Amino acid sequence: MTQTSMHEALATALRTADAQLDDSLARLFDLLRIPSISTQPAHAGDCRAAAAWLAEELNGLGFDAGLRETPGHPVVVAHEPVRPGDTRPHVLFYGHYDVQPVDPLSLWDSPPFEPVLIGEAETRRIVARGASDDKGQVMTFVEALRAWRAACVELPVRVSLLIEGEEESGGANLPGFLADNADELRADIALICDTDMLGGRVPAICAMLRGLVGEEVVIRCADRDLHSGMFGNAARNPIAVLADIVASLRDADGRVTLPGFYDGVPTIPDAVRSRWAGLGLDDDAALLGPMGLRVPAGERGFSAMEQVWVRPTCEINGIVGGYTGEGFKTVLPAEARAKISFRLVGTQDPDAIRASFRRHVSERLPPDATATFHEHGGSRAVSLPLDGPWLRASLGALSAEWGREAAVVASGGSIPVATLLLDTLGMETLLIGFARADDRIHSPNEKYDLDSFHHGIRSWIRVLAALATVDKP
Amino acid sequence: MTQTSMHEALATALRTADAQLDDSLARLFDLLRIPSISTQPAHAGDCRAAAAWLAEELNGLGFDAGLRETPGHPVVVAHEPVRPGDTRPHVLFYGHYDVQPVDPLSLWDSPPFEPVLIGEAETRRIVARGASDDKGQVMTFVEALRAWRAACVELPVRVSLLIEGEEESGGANLPGFLADNADELRADIALICDTDMLGGRVPAICAMLRGLVGEEVVIRCADRDLHSGMFGNAARNPIAVLADIVASLRDADGRVTLPGFYDGVPTIPDAVRSRWAGLGLDDDAALLGPMGLRVPAGERGFSAMEQVWVRPTCEINGIVGGYTGEGFKTVLPAEARAKISFRLVGTQDPDAIRASFRRHVSERLPPDATATFHEHGGSRAVSLPLDGPWLRASLGALSAEWGREAAVVASGGSIPVATLLLDTLGMETLLIGFARADDRIHSPNEKYDLDSFHHGIRSWIRVLAALATVDKP
Repeated sequence: MTQTSMHEALATALRTADAQLDDSLARLFDLLRIPSISTQPAHAGDCRAAAAWLAEELNGLGFDAGLRETPGHPVVVAHEPVRPGDTRPHVLFYGHYDVQPVDPLSLWDSPPFEPVLIGEAETRRIVARGASDDKGQVMTFVEALRAWRAACVELPVRVSLLIEGEEESGGANLPGFLADNADELRADIALICDTDMLGGRVPAICAMLRGLVGEEVVIRCADRDLHSGMFGNAARNPIAVLADIVASLRDADGRVTLPGFYDGVPTIPDAVRSRWAGLGLDDDAALLGPMGLRVPAGERGFSAMEQVWVRPTCEINGIVGGYTGEGFKTVLPAEARAKISFRLVGTQDPDAIRASFRRHVSERLPPDATATFHEHGGSRAVSLPLDGPWLRASLGALSAEWGREAAVVASGGSIPVATLLLDTLGMETLLIGFARADDRIHSPNEKYDLDSFHHGIRSWIRVLAALATVDKP
Repeated sequence: MTQTSMHEALATALRTADAQLDDSLARLFDLLRIPSISTQPAHAGDCRAAAAWLAEELNGLGFDAGLRETPGHPVVVAHEPVRPGDTRPHVLFYGHYDVQPVDPLSLWDSPPFEPVLIGEAETRRIVARGASDDKGQVMTFVEALRAWRAACVELPVRVSLLIEGEEESGGANLPGFLADNADELRADIALICDTDMLGGRVPAICAMLRGLVGEEVVIRCADRDLHSGMFGNAARNPIAVLADIVASLRDADGRVTLPGFYDGVPTIPDAVRSRWAGLGLDDDAALLGPMGLRVPAGERGFSAMEQVWVRPTCEINGIVGGYTGEGFKTVLPAEARAKISFRLVGTQDPDAIRASFRRHVSERLPPDATATFHEHGGSRAVSLPLDGPWLRASLGALSAEWGREAAVVASGGSIPVATLLLDTLGMETLLIGFARADDRIHSPNEKYDLDSFHHGIRSWIRVLAALATVDKP
């Protein structure tokens, strides 16, 4: 394709995307109606249905797409039919079709798996579980492919897709799948659409992602529930033991107390910190205000943005023990449990931190208390290059679409697959996403702005064209 | 009735109780089948059904019995028909027909409201919610009345009954009911059957009961659930705030840290402590071993029995926040909550302790965290006389039935009605019960030994006869 014809094809693809937006939305709604909650065994069939739906869409776009089995939920893999002498750059798009649980259901304004389009003008948005994370983001890419197909027989780059179903549930099976299929899946660059824009409408490519260690600890004392009047005080209370342990994980300055926890935590260069400050990212009130908060709760001496982007932490994601229903029950439960996650940066070692946590807990157990641990995933932080031809081409495409300079940023979240792609396939990744901080992902009333979806599709159309101009390494 | 005829009537009543034990059990089973869980609004109709069942039984035994309305569940009140010139001592029996919730249902070996008789010889037992607390204990008294009726036209003492339905749910309505009906309900002595025997088969009368302050605290931070990757560290985590507060309630020596908490806590006389030691009650392993425990968890320097009977404490009865289902969810919840109870002794003031707790929590709230409090009942401790004619007569009757000397003991539990009867009606109470420490009350597989039920009925037959010999004050 010549430059001129590429220019014309791009314009046609963008016009097509605009014209077919309603159809694109209808397809996204179809996918959102499938309750593919990967962590709940009852939804295994729904996960498979979501995978099959995607494979069918991609086959319709001329891909060889199918479901590939794993010990858990299937992976969707799609390639363009092989064509001898194809010299286009080869990209591998990664996304996930599974979603988070929906509880508490009572806080949803509309049923989580009956998507609706509500609001006016800038607040016009798609509300459903997965609207943003990650079905809406995945469909920006799929619909960009569709627009390119309508504009042009050949896509500007060679495209493969890998869409998995266990991103929200520990992802135990993806490492093996990638290793087993490394030669098939390796491409020149990976594209992941699972991250945010910056503030209002500043497009962003994420170059730093925190890692994650997930742990569940169960404290057990007596061999049965006891009456707290008959045994309270004398019998060890596992809720109190657990509260003591949880309280011991961070000190008064918000630092995590585990021995060795800060090994491998890098200092962020002043140049990067000032660039972020220039973008207004040191404004704690702006970050926290929309959630009804005011004061950064983490390590003293760091802004809210730094605490989330570049500092490691420990959070309690769930706790339960004893009677939690209506009214009161004077029970001393036999057990109490907590789900705890550590977010990692730099070269912090997930295995070492898990081991340090378990030692920390075990050393603090009083008499008659035992601890059992369950592992819920672990991944290192990811640091991607802050420059390079793929990155520059993509930044240009995003800046053109959104009318303002795209930024290179960090993210507090974890996308373990970015580490895996680097470690297993030797591929770097461009993390380009159109979600927003107020998307309520993992929460009731999750939404994706119509603006994110529409300009997300258009962004990918432009990025694919821009990547076609990069010389393959 | 002469002494001789009393002796013969007593023997007849005891023989009747033995002969009709199967029928007595069948009636108890009927009552146990009614799921009268007072704290759960869905069971309001069942509570009323249990009350109606009891009223019908008592009417069948010649009482004027009926349901009396309150703003909550009804109270069963029964009197013997008034007879001019009746000089018999007048006793008021108190019990409760309501039961605790049954969760976790999965830990029950048989459905909680389908009573079964299982086990052999000494372990032969009735298993159901309420088997011990308090339906089984209430029915020992009702069946004793039935045996006396069969043996003799007239009961040895004049009997009234008050059986309420909110003992397990805060009991907000009983104080008003007692005050409104003080003249009707006042008798010479109250009898309550809601306590334990001592160790294996030592009958006991309880003279000290701890009081109770129940509180629920809700910690709220952000105005919605947040993704812990996107906001963790910077956004205040209500679970962590709650854990810090819970951990701050007791110090390393097991003492409660609330200012003023120990005001009014008495020192137990050495004579009483040595009498208890003589009964083997200072054997921590014997008290804790059956529950799989070993070391007293409360205040250093006190035996397990002392910690439960005569020392105040704070226990966490329930805690919940964030994601507690299968798998893992990286959520920062908007709120976390705990149910907390304080057990009181001596003259500790429930209102002062509630206020001190709320101040303690409020003073520890970090920025962006708020606390909301819900009251779940409050009562002072009860100390009853350690001697007196009613007590001596009852000890004699119990010693005769069980073949060993009955003991005067304390209890870790709270029976707020004993305070109420003293404060509102000026009546002292004899706390006589046949439950056992391993009855699993408030827990799955609650049971009442057949031995407790059978000899409980026989014990009340003897106690009623013995109380008839006391000169009215």
